[in-house]
Amino acid sequence: MLDDSFHVFDTTLRDGAQREGVNLTVADKLAIAKLLDEFGVGFIEGGWPGANPKDTEFFQRARTELSLEHAQLTAFGATRRPGAKAADDPQVAALRESGAPVVTLVAKSDDRHVRKALRTTLDENLAMITDTVRHLRENGQRVFVDLEHFFDGYHYNPEYALSAVRAAAEGGASVVVLCDTNGGMLPADITRVVTAVRAETGARLGIHAQDDSGCAVANTIAAVDAGASHVQCTANGYGERVGNANLFSVVPALILKHGRDALPEGCLREMTRVSQAIAEVVNIAPSTHQPYVGVSAFAHKAGLHASAIKVDPDLYQHTDPALFGNDMRMLVSDMAGRASIELKARELGLDLADDRELLGRVVDRVKAMEQSGYSFEAADASLELLLREEQGESVRYFEVESWRVISERRGTTRAESSVLSREAPGAAAAESSVPAVEAVSEATVKLYVKGERMIATAEGNGPVNALDRALRSALEGVYSALGNVELTDYKVRILEGSSGTDAITRVLIGSGDGRRDWTTVGVGENVIDASWIALEQAVNYGLLNQGYPRI
Amino acid sequence: MLDDSFHVFDTTLRDGAQREGVNLTVADKLAIAKLLDEFGVGFIEGGWPGANPKDTEFFQRARTELSLEHAQLTAFGATRRPGAKAADDPQVAALRESGAPVVTLVAKSDDRHVRKALRTTLDENLAMITDTVRHLRENGQRVFVDLEHFFDGYHYNPEYALSAVRAAAEGGASVVVLCDTNGGMLPADITRVVTAVRAETGARLGIHAQDDSGCAVANTIAAVDAGASHVQCTANGYGERVGNANLFSVVPALILKHGRDALPEGCLREMTRVSQAIAEVVNIAPSTHQPYVGVSAFAHKAGLHASAIKVDPDLYQHTDPALFGNDMRMLVSDMAGRASIELKARELGLDLADDRELLGRVVDRVKAMEQSGYSFEAADASLELLLREEQGESVRYFEVESWRVISERRGTTRAESSVLSREAPGAAAAESSVPAVEAVSEATVKLYVKGERMIATAEGNGPVNALDRALRSALEGVYSALGNVELTDYKVRILEGSSGTDAITRVLIGSGDGRRDWTTVGVGENVIDASWIALEQAVNYGLLNQGYPRI
Repeated sequence: MLDDSFHVFDTTLRDGAQREGVNLTVADKLAIAKLLDEFGVGFIEGGWPGANPKDTEFFQRARTELSLEHAQLTAFGATRRPGAKAADDPQVAALRESGAPVVTLVAKSDDRHVRKALRTTLDENLAMITDTVRHLRENGQRVFVDLEHFFDGYHYNPEYALSAVRAAAEGGASVVVLCDTNGGMLPADITRVVTAVRAETGARLGIHAQDDSGCAVANTIAAVDAGASHVQCTANGYGERVGNANLFSVVPALILKHGRDALPEGCLREMTRVSQAIAEVVNIAPSTHQPYVGVSAFAHKAGLHASAIKVDPDLYQHTDPALFGNDMRMLVSDMAGRASIELKARELGLDLADDRELLGRVVDRVKAMEQSGYSFEAADASLELLLREEQGESVRYFEVESWRVISERRGTTRAESSVLSREAPGAAAAESSVPAVEAVSEATVKLYVKGERMIATAEGNGPVNALDRALRSALEGVYSALGNVELTDYKVRILEGSSGTDAITRVLIGSGDGRRDWTTVGVGENVIDASWIALEQAVNYGLLNQGYPRI
Repeated sequence: MLDDSFHVFDTTLRDGAQREGVNLTVADKLAIAKLLDEFGVGFIEGGWPGANPKDTEFFQRARTELSLEHAQLTAFGATRRPGAKAADDPQVAALRESGAPVVTLVAKSDDRHVRKALRTTLDENLAMITDTVRHLRENGQRVFVDLEHFFDGYHYNPEYALSAVRAAAEGGASVVVLCDTNGGMLPADITRVVTAVRAETGARLGIHAQDDSGCAVANTIAAVDAGASHVQCTANGYGERVGNANLFSVVPALILKHGRDALPEGCLREMTRVSQAIAEVVNIAPSTHQPYVGVSAFAHKAGLHASAIKVDPDLYQHTDPALFGNDMRMLVSDMAGRASIELKARELGLDLADDRELLGRVVDRVKAMEQSGYSFEAADASLELLLREEQGESVRYFEVESWRVISERRGTTRAESSVLSREAPGAAAAESSVPAVEAVSEATVKLYVKGERMIATAEGNGPVNALDRALRSALEGVYSALGNVELTDYKVRILEGSSGTDAITRVLIGSGDGRRDWTTVGVGENVIDASWIALEQAVNYGLLNQGYPRI
């Protein structure tokens, strides 16, 4: 456990959940809290108990289901209502009864917000702050106060903004967090205001920066430079509108570039894993271009760089990717020269250095295929198959005669049934005589294995699932170890041509056999055909991994 | 045209094209240059003539095909080779002959890079800079010098880095651009170094910041604060690894928050359109969470905010989205309270303010459907259909009995054919007797329109395309205006459940009728069924827009 002198405070579960498209279940929130704790943050803001049933349930289940090694769980809530006592306010009671050792109270500090949004007097707002903080402190909870819209408020009426800081400190808040709620500040603004507030009040200050100007990370660091000792961030920068200061950019800057003791020993190298795992739970594709943890963050494409990197990788990287559990990658693309392909082949365990003619052929074929819609940057297994083919080694365990997949749905939808989904809307549904409608897919695959013709048919919950099952069914008699290989991911990308109609489809299929994972790519006008191309490669590559001799 | 005192210099076509996944044709580059000019940048770096055929062709075609109103075209290249004369260097000749009025020369300023990567002496590198700049100046071109790795170099050997600035100025460079090539700097580093270099050399300075620390925008602004008067950026921050300073974040900060005259009159409001159009050309989905221009940049979700926004939008926005051609949006999600739905309905032209019971029902149904995988945030037409259904007004122009789609491929692939694509690899292909293999999809739709049973069959280049054609074929006899409605976009998202196998699919279909565009959403285990649900809504909504009375 780190000492209390510097706080890394995560608000993914509260502010991060405000991001457009995010919808977390209680199980999701528990899983994310566990991951954040593994990363070593000091505080995890779990939500607003009492504000909605999900957050209330989260705090209840956290008591028994969540065991934290590094972090303290924090409940978020608001100051009491105007004109009442904190002790009598049901919203404050939910915070008191949440079981959280720490409460973060949001309070107003912008004169205009007090009058127009809260609709109370400036003095009553200050009383609400002091009273609520004091009440929770008397209940034995630690209290941080988030002063919403602080920087805008300070600009409009600095005296009032400062009096809100003093009101929080007077009630016993251990940190007063200055929030750039609308995200309009630039680092120079933050430096000026944090420096002034610190000099005027002497309070311990924190920073909460939204990213609307694209400066949330820099703003957070500027506040620390000016004396703030508590930073509020979210995993991958999730948050309302543009998002919040990205935890996984702020923390490495503080550790590596400011020499600050922000995480427990050994945690930094979990960063890439935790970032990607949280993206999985939140169900947002991990940002490939995110600093430090993105799959592209240490990926080199330019031919100029690739040749110099062979000399000394440190010349072209600001830091070592291994510190964060990430890796340097060489990219293969139509900009790639021979140096990139050679390094990539070496990464894949193939030595092509001596064969300049082969290298040239691979470069040409990669360029031509990328022109037609392929992308090998994410599909290492496909690139390896291509390299092996150009070496004269075809990785093909079966020959395909034909495949067919039928998808259908039967069962009339009546005029009054919903056009939106399979469930009928409202009360009408219960009495409806509409028969249950169900879509099914059925695939038939005909192929030859070692000269023998095989035919198999299978059903699936979608056309690609049905094809995958039929293909396995046709092959498993001969290749029993195929049972170890499974499809783990399926991605579809529509590539628009110059006009909308001649769109082609790129499919990426992720597979794994428990020991390793691989990705294959297929391209075609028809999404099912593109899927089949990626599927055939996935299975052939899997059989190669299982050690079968090629036919 | 702005005066020369401040430069907005765009390098999307050169440095931006280094982004992983980007692959621009010459036509793409011409289209992007036109868009950047519409946005009003002062300089457009088009590429490296002579380095590859594509960039050479770009500069050739630009002479006749590209008419620029605001920008000057700039060619990128390197200083001459060690030990030769600039006048005799073929790479320098390509710059001279590019026809570009301005050349940006990349040069080394980091002692270690000169010795290890360039493998020449420190003095020869300085001579290469001065000689090459002078040669191009004598040829009548303006020269900017990009000093690669400047900040790392200044840290390691400040005297040598300063001598590189002086060498460029001595040759006649009009701007010396300090590059944070590896992107490891924080704003305070930039402020310190730019201030020092300016004091030591008096040269006109520019800044080129990579985003590896997530601070490229702030670093660019810090350099301007310290006296730089030339900023190098890329559209949407595209660039190698994490990317470059985002043009569409740097420029609004300079204009709105620094009061700088960075763009010609009237250009700023083109920003959202230009950003999205460039993303289309580059074929990267526009970042929804990008500052100022993202579709989420001014989107409000929290119930707390939604109720206050009804009072005064300025309280919750750092700037006015209309300045950039963007809009405020209210999001409907399971966090939505009644206030959000009411505002959203008003946006859609429906007044629900007086019906609290209806509002509650809509909130409940939205929450339940989002729980099952729906997302209405991007699917306004689906939300409108839902609101109308809950008002008792079913928008359904036909009843579906069944549909079926068959996708198949025939034609044997031989053992030696490529497992990667439909084209056989290398020389073997030409002599191959493998018959042409082709995938086709055929759909049959059975439905009732106004009591009459219709059956139609159609082929398509994919299953959804076939279903769309069959559905239109069945309906067009009755609804001839359906010919005005077309599908414009199709997106598939795989939503993982807790285990990989029970994944469900969310499909978004974009449609348009020349007057307006709309998006519908479908969800299901089977991708074809999910597509059908979105398709049915798309067509029903289109028929409603065409003014047909509901059946």
